[in-house]
Amino acid sequence: MIHPAPAGISTPALVVDLDTVEDNIARMARIATERGFEVRPHIKTHKTPQLAALQRASGASGLTVATIGEAEAFADAAFDDLFIAYPLWLDQARSNRLRRLADRAQVTVGVDSVPAARRLGAANLPVEVMIEVDSGHHRSGVAPGDAVGPALAAVEAGLRLRGLFTFPGHAYHPGARIRAARDEATALATAADALRAAGLHPTVLSGGSTPTAAYTRPGTVTELRPGVYVFNDAQQLALGACSPDQIGLAAATTVVSAPEPGRFVLDAGSKVLGADRPPWAPGFGFLPAFPEAVVTALSEHHAVVTAPPGHPIPTIGETTFIVPNHVCSAVNLADSLVVTRGGTVVDHWPVSARGANR
Amino acid sequence: MIHPAPAGISTPALVVDLDTVEDNIARMARIATERGFEVRPHIKTHKTPQLAALQRASGASGLTVATIGEAEAFADAAFDDLFIAYPLWLDQARSNRLRRLADRAQVTVGVDSVPAARRLGAANLPVEVMIEVDSGHHRSGVAPGDAVGPALAAVEAGLRLRGLFTFPGHAYHPGARIRAARDEATALATAADALRAAGLHPTVLSGGSTPTAAYTRPGTVTELRPGVYVFNDAQQLALGACSPDQIGLAAATTVVSAPEPGRFVLDAGSKVLGADRPPWAPGFGFLPAFPEAVVTALSEHHAVVTAPPGHPIPTIGETTFIVPNHVCSAVNLADSLVVTRGGTVVDHWPVSARGANR
Repeated sequence: MIHPAPAGISTPALVVDLDTVEDNIARMARIATERGFEVRPHIKTHKTPQLAALQRASGASGLTVATIGEAEAFADAAFDDLFIAYPLWLDQARSNRLRRLADRAQVTVGVDSVPAARRLGAANLPVEVMIEVDSGHHRSGVAPGDAVGPALAAVEAGLRLRGLFTFPGHAYHPGARIRAARDEATALATAADALRAAGLHPTVLSGGSTPTAAYTRPGTVTELRPGVYVFNDAQQLALGACSPDQIGLAAATTVVSAPEPGRFVLDAGSKVLGADRPPWAPGFGFLPAFPEAVVTALSEHHAVVTAPPGHPIPTIGETTFIVPNHVCSAVNLADSLVVTRGGTVVDHWPVSARGANR
Repeated sequence: MIHPAPAGISTPALVVDLDTVEDNIARMARIATERGFEVRPHIKTHKTPQLAALQRASGASGLTVATIGEAEAFADAAFDDLFIAYPLWLDQARSNRLRRLADRAQVTVGVDSVPAARRLGAANLPVEVMIEVDSGHHRSGVAPGDAVGPALAAVEAGLRLRGLFTFPGHAYHPGARIRAARDEATALATAADALRAAGLHPTVLSGGSTPTAAYTRPGTVTELRPGVYVFNDAQQLALGACSPDQIGLAAATTVVSAPEPGRFVLDAGSKVLGADRPPWAPGFGFLPAFPEAVVTALSEHHAVVTAPPGHPIPTIGETTFIVPNHVCSAVNLADSLVVTRGGTVVDHWPVSARGANR
């Protein structure tokens, strides 16, 4: 976001810098070519078919989604290779939706337990499965050595096993990116060996993530599922995973209050930016025009910003950008994105899968 | 949420317990009567006309909103007394929208600076103003002794001054509620005295908030603008501002993963619950059925929960409730609310003003 916020945008609004986004997509495609993996971008970040189309044009092998609702929205937009990278637990409604989805797309589903594998198999759906492995984030996923259980259960239940996936989310800490990329490779290799020893044949080994992609060693994964890289955000900046000029989305805001020297208030709060703030983040967002300023507090409609003495601050009524900590949360709050190129508004894109979180 | 999650709800979904909500609304109305103030509930919490109608039926004097968009949504639902408790900075688009809004409702707008007062006056809109005073939260609002500046500017610009408002948001810390209520009263009294000394006549003295309402002393405010009380949430519980049986909204979730003893994963993350977590909160939410469990991490679609050894945990596939930390964030993520009474689904209400954050 090297440009000032374009004039005439009623704030707060999420603004995309298309030149930067295209650069980000091309950069990830280059990394993938160099290191020999496919990119299956996670669309939870943008939820916007126009952006998925740019990713497809850069060579994306298919899309990753988190929910059946996201898959439905992208099937509506004619994307036909969709991996729901989530350990779904099927109820009747979800089973019915998956069946209709599989009529119009190749659908792959995550599994991380024997009960879920059996349940999915019993539903007799034309979907393939990927077994989720925990590579150190300790969220969902079985320990690498335990992948055989759900994998065998899936195969015995009549499902086709595509492979293994993991999310190295423990990369989201300062200094942790290299280790997390190594953990990802080790976990996938350990689980793949275990599956092969059990007579199974995982063909896809799928990893994360925007902060680890640059550290992926050739031959350790067959695909990555990065999401945030298309926009980047204040977290990626703080992690060192992007530079300020690689940030492709920010909220255009207005200074609505400047009650005392060194403190001002922007009209974007947690209902525009999201409330994400890991303990290591310097604040609730990043102001490209005032990089020394700190977003010290975030209410629903107020970002309270303080600047150290002697640093410039904007005046009341001025428009400025704020980059959210976690862009996926911000986009999921917006009905549409203002698309710019070179500081000029060129389009508005609906966030088609906004709220499709079920 | 004393009931188990009703069967047949596809998770994740926000579920309202209408009996509890009605009790909460009635309780606030009783406090208001006892302590001699009007209730002008802040609808940012629920964004739902059906709930505002219940508040009106309990005697609410009008509604508080945070944005012109929320005001428009509630004017659409025939609410005609709307206070935008926010220091609006008018651009042409906002000016046009306010003018159309004022055709169909009595509109009051917040002001906390001389420039904003002059700008509002220059737009020549049929709106009244309230001057925002900082009572200790240090967000927007002028220092109490400085309220005369924007108040005089507003009157000189031809606007009618209704009074003063403040939000004692510093009540959102353990042990701070009594002091914040006292600060609120002091700030409003100081500012009102200053205005009267300048020949002005503030008739409305308007304060917060769910955690301070019970500590409001008679005669210190003429109205309060609580929002969260209609549902309560895990923050209010941690602050001691409600009991578990006064929680009127929770997310129905499914256990999708249970990768190791004592840890399980629910299918509601920050895109359903919001990512709000003040440093003093025990976790990212509260599980009524497993009160000893801690939501240690929240991804976009995963709540990672740990339970101390020896405490029961739900099994994979089981449905359970999770109460969000900050209910206003959760509701703003949902397209609709599942309305229950006695554990039975009785209705679905659209969150009409969801995303109306501009």
